[in-house]
Amino acid sequence: MAEISTKPNNKALVVLSGGQDSTTCLFWAKKEFKEVYAISFNYGQKHQHETAIAQSIAERAGVSFKLMDIYFISQLATNCSLTDSSIKMDKEKPEGSFPNTFVPGRNLFFLSIAAVYARSLGIRDIVTGVSQTDFSGYPDCRDSFIKSLNVSLNLAMDEQFVLHTPLMWKDKAETWEMADNLGVFDIVRNETLTCYNGVVGDGCGHCPACLLRRKGLEMYLEKKNLKH
Amino acid sequence: MAEISTKPNNKALVVLSGGQDSTTCLFWAKKEFKEVYAISFNYGQKHQHETAIAQSIAERAGVSFKLMDIYFISQLATNCSLTDSSIKMDKEKPEGSFPNTFVPGRNLFFLSIAAVYARSLGIRDIVTGVSQTDFSGYPDCRDSFIKSLNVSLNLAMDEQFVLHTPLMWKDKAETWEMADNLGVFDIVRNETLTCYNGVVGDGCGHCPACLLRRKGLEMYLEKKNLKH
Repeated sequence: MAEISTKPNNKALVVLSGGQDSTTCLFWAKKEFKEVYAISFNYGQKHQHETAIAQSIAERAGVSFKLMDIYFISQLATNCSLTDSSIKMDKEKPEGSFPNTFVPGRNLFFLSIAAVYARSLGIRDIVTGVSQTDFSGYPDCRDSFIKSLNVSLNLAMDEQFVLHTPLMWKDKAETWEMADNLGVFDIVRNETLTCYNGVVGDGCGHCPACLLRRKGLEMYLEKKNLKH
Repeated sequence: MAEISTKPNNKALVVLSGGQDSTTCLFWAKKEFKEVYAISFNYGQKHQHETAIAQSIAERAGVSFKLMDIYFISQLATNCSLTDSSIKMDKEKPEGSFPNTFVPGRNLFFLSIAAVYARSLGIRDIVTGVSQTDFSGYPDCRDSFIKSLNVSLNLAMDEQFVLHTPLMWKDKAETWEMADNLGVFDIVRNETLTCYNGVVGDGCGHCPACLLRRKGLEMYLEKKNLKH
């Protein structure tokens, strides 16, 4: 992996939500970098225990954890079911618009804040679990956005940040495989929170995030069993 | 101005700090667009009355005003004299580094938040007073950063924002001339706050911002007197 061999100081900052994807990325970073830090965000999300879960995963992984309060995001988000509990969540992406689980600018803010924080720690490498493969209609999970933002961040601060996206082209089955190869399949399966209804581990089983996660899990387990 | 002729809905949002530059931009926007909105930020800056000044300028201009609290910026800024009153301000840009008046990522956050807010109002055109000519060593005032961020914002939200920078290539004398041509020379001279020491109008007279502002004013007045 040419990308990784360029790391200058062996330190990385992981944007950690405590879900399947970012947790897998945290353990990926632990393997790739010597010193790993995690950052999570309180942005008025419905499931406030999300950040407590992120923190306990960071502790288990033995990495330093920073929680940032950025409530302005929920002031800004209009008609969003993830930050406004009076709105019923879309089960599917509506034709011609975003699902109402879209928090406008979320990854823009997460990664921008992560970059300023990384800079203060002398960290250049930043890891995020976004994936274009399963991007569910969120434009800020796409590869072109991440690459554009990488340039913007470097120009904003005259730095040489590298945004790492180990899951960008993986589907959920491949992400499960990655967690298994990293030796953290059980942690990811039992301790992470992906479910839109706030249920840890295998989740509520019927929200869009659970359906996607379970389908990937079943595909991966099937593939694994065929091998043995 | 080809750029302006493309405006689809005649609405614009101005990032307003209440200083000379953004106030001039506010009146520029009033001339160019039918409906103008202003947004200001509380980010823990030393001179808290800055936002009150911005608000009174917006009221005088008859535009709707939004104030956003984004204190996380001062949590992030390390060794910055504008947000930490225990630090003495650099008078000049230190060799090989930024002046300690640099708040890392400030324009990145201001413009990103402005974009999400603009989107919620159905506004596409966003105006900022940044200038590369007098950029004082701040990388996030440069044209390349603004253009890169414009692309990042559009990709983040699948929108067609246009970031307008009417002062990008103007020096302070030309900015005074612009205010005069817009008929707001006295408002800009007497009611704006540019001074790092928080003194309205002509300011304390000795901080870097006052020196720059006064030099431009003197140059412009000299040029104007020569004409008459």
